Amino acid sequence: MVDFKKLCEKYDTPLYVYDFNKIEENFLSLKKAFKARKSIISYAIKANSNLSVLKKLASLGSGADCVSIGEIKRALIAGIPKYKIVFSGVGKRDEEIREALELDILFINLESEAEMDRVEEIAKSLDKKARISIRVNPDIDPKTHPYISTGLSENKFGVDIESAKKMYLRANKSSYLEPVGIHFHIGSQLTDIEPIKEASRIVADLTRALINIGIEIKFFDIGGGLGIVYKDEKTIKPYDYAQAIFSNLKGLDLTVVCEPGRYIVGNAGYFLTKVLYEKRTKNKRFIIVDGAMNDLLRPSLYKAYHKVEVLRNDEAKSKADVVGPVCESGDFLAKDAFLPKTKHNDIIVVYSAGAYGFVMSSNYNTRPRAAEIAVEDGKDRVIRDRESFEDLIALEKKYL
Amino acid sequence: MVDFKKLCEKYDTPLYVYDFNKIEENFLSLKKAFKARKSIISYAIKANSNLSVLKKLASLGSGADCVSIGEIKRALIAGIPKYKIVFSGVGKRDEEIREALELDILFINLESEAEMDRVEEIAKSLDKKARISIRVNPDIDPKTHPYISTGLSENKFGVDIESAKKMYLRANKSSYLEPVGIHFHIGSQLTDIEPIKEASRIVADLTRALINIGIEIKFFDIGGGLGIVYKDEKTIKPYDYAQAIFSNLKGLDLTVVCEPGRYIVGNAGYFLTKVLYEKRTKNKRFIIVDGAMNDLLRPSLYKAYHKVEVLRNDEAKSKADVVGPVCESGDFLAKDAFLPKTKHNDIIVVYSAGAYGFVMSSNYNTRPRAAEIAVEDGKDRVIRDRESFEDLIALEKKYL
Repeated sequence: MVDFKKLCEKYDTPLYVYDFNKIEENFLSLKKAFKARKSIISYAIKANSNLSVLKKLASLGSGADCVSIGEIKRALIAGIPKYKIVFSGVGKRDEEIREALELDILFINLESEAEMDRVEEIAKSLDKKARISIRVNPDIDPKTHPYISTGLSENKFGVDIESAKKMYLRANKSSYLEPVGIHFHIGSQLTDIEPIKEASRIVADLTRALINIGIEIKFFDIGGGLGIVYKDEKTIKPYDYAQAIFSNLKGLDLTVVCEPGRYIVGNAGYFLTKVLYEKRTKNKRFIIVDGAMNDLLRPSLYKAYHKVEVLRNDEAKSKADVVGPVCESGDFLAKDAFLPKTKHNDIIVVYSAGAYGFVMSSNYNTRPRAAEIAVEDGKDRVIRDRESFEDLIALEKKYL
Repeated sequence: MVDFKKLCEKYDTPLYVYDFNKIEENFLSLKKAFKARKSIISYAIKANSNLSVLKKLASLGSGADCVSIGEIKRALIAGIPKYKIVFSGVGKRDEEIREALELDILFINLESEAEMDRVEEIAKSLDKKARISIRVNPDIDPKTHPYISTGLSENKFGVDIESAKKMYLRANKSSYLEPVGIHFHIGSQLTDIEPIKEASRIVADLTRALINIGIEIKFFDIGGGLGIVYKDEKTIKPYDYAQAIFSNLKGLDLTVVCEPGRYIVGNAGYFLTKVLYEKRTKNKRFIIVDGAMNDLLRPSLYKAYHKVEVLRNDEAKSKADVVGPVCESGDFLAKDAFLPKTKHNDIIVVYSAGAYGFVMSSNYNTRPRAAEIAVEDGKDRVIRDRESFEDLIALEKKYL
């Protein structure tokens, strides 16, 4: 197990800690589940983009699902080969499209006809043929938080089946577009297999129809979104997940591209924070800690639950809110958690913080971002320095 | 007026632009409103902490309301004198308290008895007498967004009247504490004057009681929170605000400390973003732009309204959501705004973005943070460079 106390003494708090053995285990469990077919596990970098995390995954054979040119550059620097890199996302700048084409990545996922126009025009200007895939929105309710649900027709993502067909036909005729894949992604933190099964059935049917008219789809990109246990969720087993997809692909010779993010890193990460002091008001008990919403935004933004634990053996527990120093009532890490009475400098562990944790952190209230630590085979090492005050003002100071 | 198109051509998008003449105007209007009494206008740095913004305010005689040692350092670097700097906030680390005492700022606002213990202990270790003020929570409903409401007893902020009294008595006897001020702050974006009036009455009565028993309160710190117009709010006039406070201070010889943030910079700032393309789904029209929730979090986090405008003369307008490239349905800048049909590279102006805009921005999706530009007397200049990809990986790359 990870020795949280020792890490806090060594590296100070607030602190992000990632268990690289756990990351490996999660990655391999998914890879194994999909091994009955040609497949690429393309890690969704947006969940946790630390270069050392990416390097670890690259060493295991991972590809990368990227949503910005910055993420593509991260993937390449970390050693992920270009032929395993997919460029997704609902809004791509011209420069990003150009650079992705020049870098010759596997394919670009398109989310609208207007985007296809841009990619075609830029490919033409480079005299290249852009490998593309189209994100189909199957209009399925994924039953997750509205902010991370993406497969309904009211969402900004993808195109409906009919539009997709037209786009494929047009792309197939273009000298600058090569439709090689088909893509769907209905949401994040999915815990119900039926919507995934249903979505893949719809998209597999469309794929058959496209192949029948001579469009050579090679990649079946199923997105990501596999949920994890934050509290007591019943999650989908990798094997069942893979089988749900495979069951719809009979007779199709396709490489499955799977884009897990949270599943790989979520429960491999911990956010560590120190107790500053306790405080009671008439109605409430507050544990004030040195970590805040700028470090971990999920509780504020999604009202997300994270399990918290005080590193102290104590029988008597009572309800408390764990809150940070930021001057907003929205700055909390946990609400109504049962926790022992704490003392100054006690350590609190916030679980399941490996995904959408550090990557969403900011310098709000001029708070330096936390350091990131890797633990692997019993050894710990820094993988990103804690920010200093000088780092925070580096791009402003010269203009004084 | 600010020429947004020219600025976008010159500096690219997404972009934050601040009108320094407007900042000056806002600051002076408040200073004038409070001139009938001894007063310090201490700008709340958390709203917009750019060093050039602070330097501008320093030149006008502003003090600083700080909530971290980083903000105190920003204030000092920008030329705000230490005797106008207040250190507030619900959670201060030992090192922050120590450094604030060594820097000899005006006073520290305390928010709990446990915090007073820490300050006393650290002052003792430095053989100093810490000037303090206590934040009183008057248990008043400020009628604003729950996340930025701070004056209810269920909030983490301040202490109730009875606890405050006890703390003042104890502080007055301590060799290491000098109670010089009293503080309250009931919330942000306040548009109703009655709660402010009521809160100041309660705290003024407490001040009289404290002075009567020999506690020499010199500073009456009324916090900030003055609302601005985002849409069609009826806001409080600075004169009425000051008078509401003054009416409760009869017979008291106190310096009023006023801590405006949003009021000074909110409507002096603009967020500029470029249209990537439009997209229609069955039910909705989306304008996809190159700015996102990582740049301006307020719409996602608070469901805050910001007026948006397309720089294009067009009669026909229809409803659209303005959304960014980040892979979340929560990534929007405006919902159901009436906007003309846009073209690739059209500029969209997001108004009222000067406060809680850039300061809350992050690198989510490996998106570099925007540049910040000052416009003053018809001239524009960079006050913070756009981040580069190299900036983003600087603290990680060496560990690869």
